[in-house]
Amino acid sequence: MENRLKVILDTIEPVDTKREAEIQAHLDDLTKPKGSLGRLEELAQKYILITGASWPKIPQKAVFVFAGDHGVTEEGISAFPKEVTYQMVYNFLRGGAGINVLARHAGANVHVVDAGVDYDFEKNQDLIIKKVDYGTKNMIKGPAMTRQQAVEGILNGIEIAFDAIQRGYGLLATGEMGIGNTTPASAITAVITGKSPACVTGRGTGIDSDALNKKIQIIEQAININQPNPCDGIDVLSKVGGHEIAGIAGLILGCAAKKVPVVVDGFISTAGALIAHTLCPTSVQYMFASHMSVEQGHRIQLEHLGLKPLLDMDLRLGEGTGAALAMTIIDAAIKIYTEMATFSGAKVSPGNEV
Amino acid sequence: MENRLKVILDTIEPVDTKREAEIQAHLDDLTKPKGSLGRLEELAQKYILITGASWPKIPQKAVFVFAGDHGVTEEGISAFPKEVTYQMVYNFLRGGAGINVLARHAGANVHVVDAGVDYDFEKNQDLIIKKVDYGTKNMIKGPAMTRQQAVEGILNGIEIAFDAIQRGYGLLATGEMGIGNTTPASAITAVITGKSPACVTGRGTGIDSDALNKKIQIIEQAININQPNPCDGIDVLSKVGGHEIAGIAGLILGCAAKKVPVVVDGFISTAGALIAHTLCPTSVQYMFASHMSVEQGHRIQLEHLGLKPLLDMDLRLGEGTGAALAMTIIDAAIKIYTEMATFSGAKVSPGNEV
Repeated sequence: MENRLKVILDTIEPVDTKREAEIQAHLDDLTKPKGSLGRLEELAQKYILITGASWPKIPQKAVFVFAGDHGVTEEGISAFPKEVTYQMVYNFLRGGAGINVLARHAGANVHVVDAGVDYDFEKNQDLIIKKVDYGTKNMIKGPAMTRQQAVEGILNGIEIAFDAIQRGYGLLATGEMGIGNTTPASAITAVITGKSPACVTGRGTGIDSDALNKKIQIIEQAININQPNPCDGIDVLSKVGGHEIAGIAGLILGCAAKKVPVVVDGFISTAGALIAHTLCPTSVQYMFASHMSVEQGHRIQLEHLGLKPLLDMDLRLGEGTGAALAMTIIDAAIKIYTEMATFSGAKVSPGNEV
Repeated sequence: MENRLKVILDTIEPVDTKREAEIQAHLDDLTKPKGSLGRLEELAQKYILITGASWPKIPQKAVFVFAGDHGVTEEGISAFPKEVTYQMVYNFLRGGAGINVLARHAGANVHVVDAGVDYDFEKNQDLIIKKVDYGTKNMIKGPAMTRQQAVEGILNGIEIAFDAIQRGYGLLATGEMGIGNTTPASAITAVITGKSPACVTGRGTGIDSDALNKKIQIIEQAININQPNPCDGIDVLSKVGGHEIAGIAGLILGCAAKKVPVVVDGFISTAGALIAHTLCPTSVQYMFASHMSVEQGHRIQLEHLGLKPLLDMDLRLGEGTGAALAMTIIDAAIKIYTEMATFSGAKVSPGNEV
């Protein structure tokens, strides 16, 4: 199975930048001072280079919300009980969660993935069942999952991306739900970036300072016991990760393999992006960082990846909510490129800007 | 005429905050950790308090692009020739400018106002002719306009707001076009905030360092010659302002008088907001700051007003482009408030957050 993953990773190519000057020339011919639409221009440039389209269209959009449970919740590291994971999956399927509202706003569909929830769901057309296990094991007692499970979770995410792309989606986003999952996300971040757990661990859904200190200790303990190898993304994921994080890493890698842009949500999703980046550094070229989370480790993750977030709205909900909002900005950037008049066409005098 | 303005200013009331706790209680009952949607929650709260609606609806939206010319352009302070002002008005009316694209994206209409362009336009249903003069006078030689013209421009903006609100618009935004207008905007900002012209003057559409130094000197000269009184917004506006800036100040005041939220675009628009604030400090309660402009004085303006921008996308186009993008975020905030499920309704276990 790990060999199958390797074969897919080998297909990921760097983004072809040879049309950069041509795209820039069109941006500079639009009726505005050069560069005056700032990051919208940068987004249009990046989006077009990734897709390779000569004239970009507004893409069909989908947010994939990967759900998973965490054995480490038995240590009391979250403000919410574990049952909220499956309860929120039902909330997603009924359309009542934050991600449903913001995805509708962005014109994106929401697909929920049971990557490893400790609950048996009935069939539902919006629920993709890719259950690797009924939650992870408690990572302070040993690995969160086996190496094979980690690979399985990544391959599931890749398969979901391939399937979505084949069905016509042109812009995917990552989201997640999993009570306790800021703990594995912090652990992954500490291991891969080399920062201390105290630097990358925050309050998650809302714990107090005592609980935060305990959470940091638990992360230190999990790392000490498991000794994950920071150069081996699968090792890190299996020892201190989560099933939803595996799926997110896979979704990102699947997008990169198919040259489809992927919008990465907040702290948990970016932990998945760190795993993807460790397995294939080139994959980062296909990522858009949607927003800067309140969760303190997020800035460190983004710096490690060299990504600059689009939004900074003090969000810390996850689910893909920041990614959905960012999708509306990416659409706006595409429209700037395709709908604005040019200086010559609009009979507007060009300037002599520096 | 100034008396008529005073009567309108006297009708502006502070935003009624007595429903704050009730609105917060609903936000806290939505299926998410408390406060986890950050600024979206803050926006919803502010929007609902301003409008006084018990259950907010997605508002009809319009961006008003005020256009004006500037006598000071004869000093060579812009990278673009003066003719671009009227040429861009035609571009707006044809739908090809950045603001047209982003307003369509936001579901907002664009109305262009000839506040003082040095050109006679034909009639057009999307063009509101409120021409105070054929551009301002060169402010390094004396006042940019008469005090009466300044008041006339503000009253025009108020009238446009009143008319728009009567026609059903529930969220207005300011935008502008006027070659050379970062110069009066910088001058207004220096006078009202008390900062030096060098602190608040940037490169506008794209001038080099020599031209920037010259621009700063011109602003210093205009302030020295005219001695505007920082406590008298009309005096500042008439001596170192612009006709489009007068209209923007009026639009903001008109919104405040009718308890309608108004989205303020970048540096030029916020110069209008400074004038509005000087005339009526309460008006700031009705403003949403849309984005942080590249233009360096914008941060100082926003600090003076106590407003925190929603977006930071390195924009420096003006026209209302940042405001249009911000409107999509405000809509998202309203939808969060009205469309998300509650804990009780969704059968999700509440947490014990701090």
